Amino acid sequence: MDAGPAVAAERQSHVDAVLARLFSLARKRAEPLGPTYVELWRQIEASTTGGKRFRPRMVFAAYGALGGTDYEAAANVGAAFELLHTALCLHDDVIDHDFARRGTPNVAGVYRDEALAAGVELSAAEHHGSSAAVIAGDLALFNAYRLIDRSGVSDDVRARLLEVMDDALFASAAGELIDIDFALKPEDPHVDDILTMERLKTAVYSFEGPLQAGAILAGAAEEIIETLGEFGRDIGIAYQLVDDVLGVFGAEAETGKTTIGDLREGKRTVLIAYAAAARGWDELAPLFGDPSLTDADAARLRTHLVDSGARTFGEGLARYYANRAVTRLVESHIPERLRAELHPVADAVLGRAK
Amino acid sequence: MDAGPAVAAERQSHVDAVLARLFSLARKRAEPLGPTYVELWRQIEASTTGGKRFRPRMVFAAYGALGGTDYEAAANVGAAFELLHTALCLHDDVIDHDFARRGTPNVAGVYRDEALAAGVELSAAEHHGSSAAVIAGDLALFNAYRLIDRSGVSDDVRARLLEVMDDALFASAAGELIDIDFALKPEDPHVDDILTMERLKTAVYSFEGPLQAGAILAGAAEEIIETLGEFGRDIGIAYQLVDDVLGVFGAEAETGKTTIGDLREGKRTVLIAYAAAARGWDELAPLFGDPSLTDADAARLRTHLVDSGARTFGEGLARYYANRAVTRLVESHIPERLRAELHPVADAVLGRAK
Repeated sequence: MDAGPAVAAERQSHVDAVLARLFSLARKRAEPLGPTYVELWRQIEASTTGGKRFRPRMVFAAYGALGGTDYEAAANVGAAFELLHTALCLHDDVIDHDFARRGTPNVAGVYRDEALAAGVELSAAEHHGSSAAVIAGDLALFNAYRLIDRSGVSDDVRARLLEVMDDALFASAAGELIDIDFALKPEDPHVDDILTMERLKTAVYSFEGPLQAGAILAGAAEEIIETLGEFGRDIGIAYQLVDDVLGVFGAEAETGKTTIGDLREGKRTVLIAYAAAARGWDELAPLFGDPSLTDADAARLRTHLVDSGARTFGEGLARYYANRAVTRLVESHIPERLRAELHPVADAVLGRAK
Repeated sequence: MDAGPAVAAERQSHVDAVLARLFSLARKRAEPLGPTYVELWRQIEASTTGGKRFRPRMVFAAYGALGGTDYEAAANVGAAFELLHTALCLHDDVIDHDFARRGTPNVAGVYRDEALAAGVELSAAEHHGSSAAVIAGDLALFNAYRLIDRSGVSDDVRARLLEVMDDALFASAAGELIDIDFALKPEDPHVDDILTMERLKTAVYSFEGPLQAGAILAGAAEEIIETLGEFGRDIGIAYQLVDDVLGVFGAEAETGKTTIGDLREGKRTVLIAYAAAARGWDELAPLFGDPSLTDADAARLRTHLVDSGARTFGEGLARYYANRAVTRLVESHIPERLRAELHPVADAVLGRAK
């Protein structure tokens, strides 16, 4: 039985309530330590709003389909993964030197702008913003852990949930390291390396971890937890691949991001790795990663991505991983209700690419 | 009864063993994720060695003096605070743009050098180093929490220990924010603001937290835990003040750091705040914070710090806070054994300044 939209919305607002409570308490605690510290907490909270609450949805999907009924606990676990996501975004933006997310200033951007307004020159102002984002990310990370701890579950379940979150951060850090190391090598990374990086950096904490957490919370059997991990890993890779395609070919009104940003940033995706190995790349390579890339030159890059077969390859690979994910659910130990809950997830992941 | 040097050394090696075990397990887990990730964990471990293991000593001081006997648990809690210290240093070095600690490259420095060796230009290489340090700090922070979690104590004790660590990070983040905000104001910060910053940024997690954690672990009464917090806060401020004096006037062979570094960095200390308000500062102000400050000009700054009374003021204030700390222990609910354990700590803090 698929959770209807009304139920899903109710669970999301439950997650919102958990987060609102955490931030309200934090601001009270921060008051004696100064108004600027209260304001930092407001900024961290702002970082958590406006998202799709995707990771909590994964927690609920597994939890509900496997018979869970303690939605307070599930909301805490969902909120924990949302806060982990917030922490990783805050620090990822520092690493990527990004001062905006979804078109508006992120924490680094807000504090950079504060410094600029105080008359600090740009480079130092950006450093001020990045410094504030490092501090903010630390607080978000610690509190992600605390939410698991305060979810009211039994010791055994708590211990396992913490392991899942530990594994999620462990993998994300490994993926982030691989990503920053790409810049050290003169040659372009292979498709395989990009896939490994995306799986570790994003898929584990976004899909694998939350799904397994929901299953653990529901007291599911080991084999179900394991299969959910495999499903999560595959669907997470598919999600990233679709994201990479949309980052260049998507409809901006739907995706909420431009189709020139990734090209200007020089973001290493599977499409780029494929296209860089094809004839005709050498003359276009200087355009890729140029912050002042024009629309005309961006169109030339897109044409090469199509003509070289990179786009088709990327879309095909996304379909392959999504199908592989769904195939994992065919196993007899997977309840029909869980299959029914997750098939639409796989469809939605692929559907974005149409 | 004062813990003799042999006992203290044994407890420190117990803490070392806890950390060594954690890092050994992490490296094994990291192997499938690539040799560079294994190496990152080696670098994080290297960040934890060579220190004075000060925070674990505070845990043991309170714990032993209050009758604790489960040194496995105490070693885990001590190691947790050491790892928290490591995490905060890693991120503080990113915020301060420092690529060395105690004269050798820190994690940021090691990864900056790796990038330089790969032919990356300096600014991007420094960013690569800082990025690696952000990732490393996240892993250290998360694992500090995990060590408390895995210390084998009862639920109630665990919950309280986590609160103490939460308070420690909460305060440190507030102090760090105050510190980075100093750069936004045209006027020099007041002595009071520096003291508040130093208390929050360093004293809480270095003294107050570890002492209270040791007391909680030993099952001590609330009033003892509270008094230890007050002692920790005051002795922590005294420690920072002595550190500030030594940073300009210390004997480099003893302190392990230069007496020109803080002046070149423009580190805002109580001495500087005092001296900046005294006559004669205006013509010297451009020297302060100049990365290429000469020994001769450093001597001029030091002379002003002495002549203005700033040095005497700083040393006097340190003695004031150390005495205030010791006076807190006069309370009748403080066992004689705890007094005997902590008086030498206060002496040692002040003794550095002689």
